[in-house]
Order: sequence, then C-alpha cells, then structure tokens
Amino acid sequence: MKVVFIGDIVGQVGRDTVKRLLPWLKDRYQPHIVIANGENAAGGRGINAAITRELFAAGVQGITMGNHTWDNREIFEFIDDEARMVRPANLPPGTPGRGYTIIKSGSRELAIVNLIGRTFLPPSDCPFRKADEIVDELRRKTKCILVDFHAEATSEKIAMGWHLDGRASVVLGTHTHVQTNDDRILPEGTAYVTDTGMTGPRDGVLGMERESVLRKFITGMPARFQVAETKWHLNGLFVDIDETTGKAVSVRTIRVDEDSWIPA
Amino acid sequence: MKVVFIGDIVGQVGRDTVKRLLPWLKDRYQPHIVIANGENAAGGRGINAAITRELFAAGVQGITMGNHTWDNREIFEFIDDEARMVRPANLPPGTPGRGYTIIKSGSRELAIVNLIGRTFLPPSDCPFRKADEIVDELRRKTKCILVDFHAEATSEKIAMGWHLDGRASVVLGTHTHVQTNDDRILPEGTAYVTDTGMTGPRDGVLGMERESVLRKFITGMPARFQVAETKWHLNGLFVDIDETTGKAVSVRTIRVDEDSWIPA
Amino acid sequence: MKVVFIGDIVGQVGRDTVKRLLPWLKDRYQPHIVIANGENAAGGRGINAAITRELFAAGVQGITMGNHTWDNREIFEFIDDEARMVRPANLPPGTPGRGYTIIKSGSRELAIVNLIGRTFLPPSDCPFRKADEIVDELRRKTKCILVDFHAEATSEKIAMGWHLDGRASVVLGTHTHVQTNDDRILPEGTAYVTDTGMTGPRDGVLGMERESVLRKFITGMPARFQVAETKWHLNGLFVDIDETTGKAVSVRTIRVDEDSWIPA
Amino acid sequence: MKVVFIGDIVGQVGRDTVKRLLPWLKDRYQPHIVIANGENAAGGRGINAAITRELFAAGVQGITMGNHTWDNREIFEFIDDEARMVRPANLPPGTPGRGYTIIKSGSRELAIVNLIGRTFLPPSDCPFRKADEIVDELRRKTKCILVDFHAEATSEKIAMGWHLDGRASVVLGTHTHVQTNDDRILPEGTAYVTDTGMTGPRDGVLGMERESVLRKFITGMPARFQVAETKWHLNGLFVDIDETTGKAVSVRTIRVDEDSWIPA
Ligand SMILES: [Fe+2]
Ligand SMILES: [Fe+2]
Ligand SMILES: [Fe+2]
Ligand SMILES: [Fe+2]
Ligand SMILES: [Fe+2]
Ligand SMILES: [Fe+2]
Ligand SMILES: [Fe+2]
Ligand SMILES: [Fe+2]
Repeated sequence: MKVVFIGDIVGQVGRDTVKRLLPWLKDRYQPHIVIANGENAAGGRGINAAITRELFAAGVQGITMGNHTWDNREIFEFIDDEARMVRPANLPPGTPGRGYTIIKSGSRELAIVNLIGRTFLPPSDCPFRKADEIVDELRRKTKCILVDFHAEATSEKIAMGWHLDGRASVVLGTHTHVQTNDDRILPEGTAYVTDTGMTGPRDGVLGMERESVLRKFITGMPARFQVAETKWHLNGLFVDIDETTGKAVSVRTIRVDEDSWIPA
Repeated sequence: MKVVFIGDIVGQVGRDTVKRLLPWLKDRYQPHIVIANGENAAGGRGINAAITRELFAAGVQGITMGNHTWDNREIFEFIDDEARMVRPANLPPGTPGRGYTIIKSGSRELAIVNLIGRTFLPPSDCPFRKADEIVDELRRKTKCILVDFHAEATSEKIAMGWHLDGRASVVLGTHTHVQTNDDRILPEGTAYVTDTGMTGPRDGVLGMERESVLRKFITGMPARFQVAETKWHLNGLFVDIDETTGKAVSVRTIRVDEDSWIPA
Repeated sequence: MKVVFIGDIVGQVGRDTVKRLLPWLKDRYQPHIVIANGENAAGGRGINAAITRELFAAGVQGITMGNHTWDNREIFEFIDDEARMVRPANLPPGTPGRGYTIIKSGSRELAIVNLIGRTFLPPSDCPFRKADEIVDELRRKTKCILVDFHAEATSEKIAMGWHLDGRASVVLGTHTHVQTNDDRILPEGTAYVTDTGMTGPRDGVLGMERESVLRKFITGMPARFQVAETKWHLNGLFVDIDETTGKAVSVRTIRVDEDSWIPA
Repeated sequence: MKVVFIGDIVGQVGRDTVKRLLPWLKDRYQPHIVIANGENAAGGRGINAAITRELFAAGVQGITMGNHTWDNREIFEFIDDEARMVRPANLPPGTPGRGYTIIKSGSRELAIVNLIGRTFLPPSDCPFRKADEIVDELRRKTKCILVDFHAEATSEKIAMGWHLDGRASVVLGTHTHVQTNDDRILPEGTAYVTDTGMTGPRDGVLGMERESVLRKFITGMPARFQVAETKWHLNGLFVDIDETTGKAVSVRTIRVDEDSWIPA
C-alpha cells in the first residue's frame, strides 16, 4: 500500500498548496491513501468543520493533530463524530475525539495513530506505554499502521521509532515544521523520519510571519503571530508498505516549493 | 570558497568516521576549508586536547562547540590558547575561550562564529544581539562568515537565519543531531540549514546507545548513556561562497552512512 | 525608614483589599513608604492607567511589575511617563518603561528595582549582572534600595539575596503568589524573603478560580482563567531600614485574611 | 492524632539537626507520629541504608522522597523491603519501592502518600488521577492520610490541596526547600501548606554551598554542589488530626534555627 503523508498544513496558504499539489502528488506517487496533519490548518491554530471538509474534499483521507488540536474551539462540535480524525492518544481518559482510527480506501485499510511527546511540551500520559497499548490492539485487526508522533525533541522521536520498530509500518514525526533528512527503514521494517516538515508559507518562521517572530525573540515583548504570506512549500513523506507483512518496503521524503515545482 | 562543515562528531565512532571520510569528502567537494562541531567528540561529552589534535591532524581546520563545551574539564587547560576553536559567543563576559575566530587556509579566510540558543536550553545572553555585535565587527575584516547556531528549537534557528540573511555567508544549526532537509540560500545570499545532523553511530539515539535512552524515556529512572557501537553515518553541509561578496552561491546537505557510502 | 511592600495585587478583589487595609496597615506599621507589585492588578493580567491611578490614590507610592507587565496593552500608553512604576530591569535595551526609580516621600527616598528571573521563565538578560550594574549606580545616589526579584525558583531568589547582601536594603521575591516563611536579615544587613505572597482572592489558585485551574491540570484542555470571587487575603512585607547605613534593622512578613483581620 | 512532619533533610547537617531537635520537637508537639522527607539526606543526593536506619533510630517513623529518590544507587538494594519509605506514587508501573504505605505507631495508623508534580519537573503519570486512585483505596482502610506532594509550582501544589480537600487529612508540599507561610485548614478539613521547607544548613542555597550556586547562576559554567557547612535550621509542619473523621483540627508550621532555638 502506497501512502502519502502531508506535514503540518499551515493556514490558507497551506490548504491552497494541498489543493494545488494533490493531483500532482497522486500522479507522481500513486498513493492508495493520503493522510495529513491538520493541527495548524485554521490560521495556524487548530482546525474547524469547514476546513476539515475542505481537506477531505481535496483528497485527504485521514487527519492527524497535535498540541494545537484545541486552538479553534469549533472542533468540540464535531471531533467526536469525525472518525477520520485523530488527536494525540495519550491525553487523559475523557478527552474528546479519538487517538487512533482505521482509514479505509477501497479494499485497503490503514490504521493511523496520533501520539504527543512530553519533552519540552506540556504533561501528558506516557506516549511509549500508550503506543504499546494501541499498537498491540490494532495489530489484532490490521497490519498496516502509521504513527504520527507529534513531538519536539529529536531524541524522543527517534526513541519512539526504535520502540515501535517491527510493530508499526511507519513512525513519522510532526510538530517542528522542518523536514528532517533521516528517512529510512529501521532493521525490523518500520519506515521512520524524525519530522515530515510543514506545508504552507515557505519564507516565514514555521509558517508564521517572520518579522513578528524575530521581533519576539529579540525584544521578548508579547506578539500575536499571523500566517505569513509568502511563496509556498509542501513537505511530507511517501511510504510503500507490504500489506502481507505490514513492513515498509520504501520511504522517501517529499519536499517541493513554489520555485522548484514544475506542474505536469 | 568551498566549505565543508561536519555536524556534531560523537565519540570515537564519530572521529573514526571523520578520519575515514575526509579524503573522500575532499575529493568529492574540493573544500578550501573544513570545519566541524566537536562538542560530543570525547565519548559524547565535550572534547579534550588529544582529540582536538586528532581532528586537526585529520584535516579539520576549525572546531565549533555547544552546550557540551565544558563536559570534559580538560578543555579549561587549552581553550584559551586554541585559536581555531570557538565556544558559544553569547556566554557571559569572562567565559574561557572565544566565541568567534578567523580560520586561515592558504590565502583564504573564513570567520567562524558559535552561538547558542535559549529556547529549551539554559539561560545565556541574547544570541540575536550578540550576533549583530560580532557579525558587524567581523564584516569590517572579512566577507566570509560562517555561523554555527547551536540550538534546539526550529523557530529560533530559522529566526537567526532571517536575522543574519545578507550579513553572514552561512547560518547553519547544530545540536539536534538530526539533519534537516531545508538547505537553501535565503534571498539576501545567506546559505541556511536548520541542522546539519551528527557524525558517529547511526543506530543509536543521537549517537548514544538506544536501549538505555529508551529505558530512560519509559521508566524515568536515571541512566548513564554511552556512545552506541553501531554502523556510522556522517552528516554535514557543503557551501560555496563567493569571496568577492561573501554571499553563498550554492549549498547542499551531506548525508552518508556505512551502507550507502562507496569509497572511491 | 519604615517600608510596607504589598505582594502581587490580583484583580478587583486585590485592589479592594488594598484600599480596605491600607489605613490599618499605616496605623499598624507606620510606614514612610508603601510599595506594591501590580502585575496582576487588572483582572489578573497586567495593569492599566485607571488602576495605576487608583492604587496611587489609595496610598501606594511605587509599583513593581513582573512577567505580566505587558498583558494589558494599555500600559504602552503611559509606562514611559510614569516615574513611579518599574518593570523588570533586565529586559532588552529599548524596552518601554524603566527598571529602577527613586520614590520620594517627604524628605525620604527609597530606590526600587525590579528584576526578573530566568529559571522556568522566558529568556532575559542576566539578572545578577544587571543587579550589579544598577545597584552600584544607585548607591552613588541613595542608601536605601529595595529590589523586587520576580522569579519562580527558590534557588535563584535565594542566590540573589546573597548576591546583594550588604548592597541592597531589601531583596524580596514576588511571582509565586505564596508567601514564604523565611523572612530574615542576612549577615551584611539585607532584609530578605523569598516571596511576599499575593493580595486578592484567598480561596482560588494564585488568585484565579480554582475549578478551572484544577480542570486544566487534570484534563490538559485549554482554559481561560478568571479572578476568583472568594474571601480576600493580603500578603506583604514590613521592613525598617537604617537610613544612615541603608541596612535593614527589622523585617517581618505581613499575612492577613478576611477571617483573621480585625479592623481597628 | 498529632503528627510532626520534617521537611527535606539535607546532608549530615540536616540529619544532625533532626537528631538534636527530635527530643525537643516531641516535648513541644507531643506527636504520635513523626514523618520526614529524606530525598536529600545523603549529601544532598538521595538516601542510603545506613542513613535510613539512622533516621528511624532517631525517631522518624516514615520517610517520603521526591525527584532525588534514585540519586544514591544504594537505594535499589533496600527500597522494595522498606515498608516505611515511600517514593512518588505516580512513577511508571514497575518502579521499585511503593508510593504509599501505612505507618503504625502504637494503636494509631497514618497512611502516607508521596506524589510528584509535573510542572517544571520531568514527565510522570498524572498526580491528580493517581491521587484519586490511591486516596480512594486508602480511605477504605484508614481515615488519617498524609500526602507529601513533591512539586515545584505553587499553582500545582495549591490545586492538589483543593483536589484532595476533605479526602486527605493533610496535603503538604516539599521540594522547594523554602517554607511557605500559608498553612491553613481548607473548608472540607484538609490541612494544607504549599511547602514545609528544609532541614539542614541555613545559610546556603537550598542547603548547598552558596558560593558555587551563585557562581553557576552568574557564569553558567558547570559546578558540583556540596552541602553547605553553616548554621542549621529545621522546617516542618505540625498537624493534629481528628481520628474519628480524618479531618485536621489544627495545623502550624515549624520553623527553628540555630540562633532562635532555645533548648529546654
Ligand atoms: Fe504544527
Ligand atoms: Fe505542533
Ligand atoms: Fe551535539
Ligand atoms: Fe548540543
Ligand atoms: Fe503575580
Ligand atoms: Fe508573575
Ligand atoms: Fe529536596
Ligand atoms: Fe526535590
């Protein structure tokens, strides 16, 4: 099964980029399933119902989230009913929404799991123990499992890759908004990358206007960040999974920007 | 001027990798100057006199450091006298060593600057103001300036890239030990990458044994990490700088591992 | 010179408490000067012009701030002109307002200095070096110096007490909103307390509604905290300074609440 | 039931202080049970078998720990067998030792629980949910329950007080080593104080030599802290619990130092 994952979609620039490039991505990678991280889709802060529909309409089939899940309060109205969206699974019992789900596409099935890290991030339940619990349960139902580990520290993300090697088909990181150049298949068959990078404005800071972020770093004064209006880039991951074993057979980062992209 | 930068060298595996690959790197990239980050060169923790000599003998011409600068106390004996080594410049006045220096290679000169970030790291002086101060001074002496910004957060590193765009020839990040796939030349001519990645054991966690790191994440119990003994990888950056302007004309990440490398 | 310092005033409950108790405080402690921390005076978040006037009218003669200085954006309109208000002095050059000032009361003068810590708080310039700089300058003008060190960690605050022992008349802490029971005079004559505590609602969490704070800790979900509406308490510090030497001769915490207070 | 709790005992100065003052504490407070926090008893870092015996021999009947539990590796040899010692209960399943226990003294029983906070501290399981679980279980066995919440942030500690109000007899904080002046009985009968303070050297920084701590803050250079050799102070809490209801009937901080103490 071929899977395309699109990294953190930031604001309208990010959504427009997804819509513009999905035909090209489908042509080039022939994915059976397209998953995207949507935690910054609504103006950089969370997601809402209309944007969720917009992304599904564009061809995204499953959405993962992260620390910005609740930024847009509209999500509380629909997350419990949206079976194609996952928020971090290691939030406390009783948290709205779900932490894992199975995405169907034709006869194919891909389980997607969202976990959040604890290093340099607010407290949450242990992502490693939660990963054990969920992956063990999912493996009784399906072989193909994609884990989006939304975390800050490279050490925690790499550790999760090793932790799930041979048990998940893919462990990919999101949250830092910068793609890492360490895509590989681990010894037991799990495709891994520390961060898939973001999708949206290329010339800001993590997708936000660079002037205000820079001013904040230098002056320390409070600032409200807006999504930057610059050229776009799209970052993500392509993985090919052997459906009989659930192991990855190939993995490759996807990195395209407005200057480098040549429409077919 | 062609420059090769080698990312955080971890332990003996890292040093052996540097020695093994430098001839190949020189053949392939034809660098006029080779710089390396050495903060983890001595068993993952700091550097000492013998290892410093070993790296210079191998062909490294300048060494940058980071948050692990002082891990090996032997450094206090020689850092004040070693003009080819820089530690973060934004440490308090009176700190041993220097924060920037000029590396000479034949008739060529490359200024190297080391700065450390403050997000998710211990307090230090403002790296942005210190960068202004140093870069303005250096530009009166030389056009070619390489800044190693040793920092954790992608936002802070990207902000530094924009901050120095057009004033430094290269702003590259170190510290996360994972190479990022965002090498580019910014609009005003500064080559930029968020992290160059590390050099040393490939199958650990940031170069350390993965079993103990994973156990630490899961159990929270104290652990002493050792450098992993696995296959190696080398990560770094190649930059070509126009010496008449100090602007970068090309930049490319270097990523090689024991399985992919084919000796000439 | 007798000084009363009133700890972080939180919201209207806090302001009403100050107005209710100031006559009693003046009667009981006979202060020559009254200083208060006002960083939470406006609904828990910053301060504004009307509240500043309200506090001065009530008898407060100098106001210190903290990490919440800029929460209410109205402050930018008047802080540069308000010579009786100090914000942390170790913010970057160019920050609005001032970090120290001299408060006059009749023929008496008390210099007040505001500094902010760096442990568990956002980056700022070194408070210890900044303290040296300011205190050395102030001592050429006046002997009586009060330092409000707004910081989280007990270690950093105690270290500041020792750092300034014999050079400041008083080093008192604010920010944690809980009074500490360690008021003393250090060997060289500086009155010290790690935290003066807060003034405002007694039965919340740091002055905010306890239900929402508790829910936030348990669920991790975003929450907007409101000032609690409960009985009040007032916490602060009384110090008596020998004006010929600038040394403290006595220090005592002030702790009063709605149940324990018996109006004269 | 009258209980004396002795705050974090630091090094030999702390242990000697306990031994010197216990007869006086017993005379003055007539406690039925004496509990102490021992996480810094061995040179500031953890505890060992001999020191554990020493404290029990001196009259301490139960020992709580904290983030320094594992600093002295000798603890692994005896913690599983020592039923009178508790380490934070909200560490992962499989952690050596126990998180709560029942201390017997004559015909009386006091359950003691140790929890650790997550704000400004390493990740752990949710202390609030763990508190629910343990306190609910304990209440089926005994009415008198003392919770030592070892945490940094005042907000988290106060929130725990409210969380357990009416369910625990005492919620006291440790870890900051500075006693807070907010001892009270909450509306539903739980005695509460944010921090009991420490026991050991009075004129250091949290019990460690002040020169090296201050140098660390100013220079940022690595330092190894030693227990200070200064006059002593002892900080703790006295609580009287109604054994028929498990509610506290009185609470008072204990603060004594070498200069103020007058032996009987
Ligand atoms: Fe994101
Ligand atoms: Fe995120
Ligand atoms: Fe490193
Ligand atoms: Fe580093
Ligand atoms: Fe405050
Ligand atoms: Fe504050
Ligand atoms: Fe302690
Ligand atoms: Fe502690």
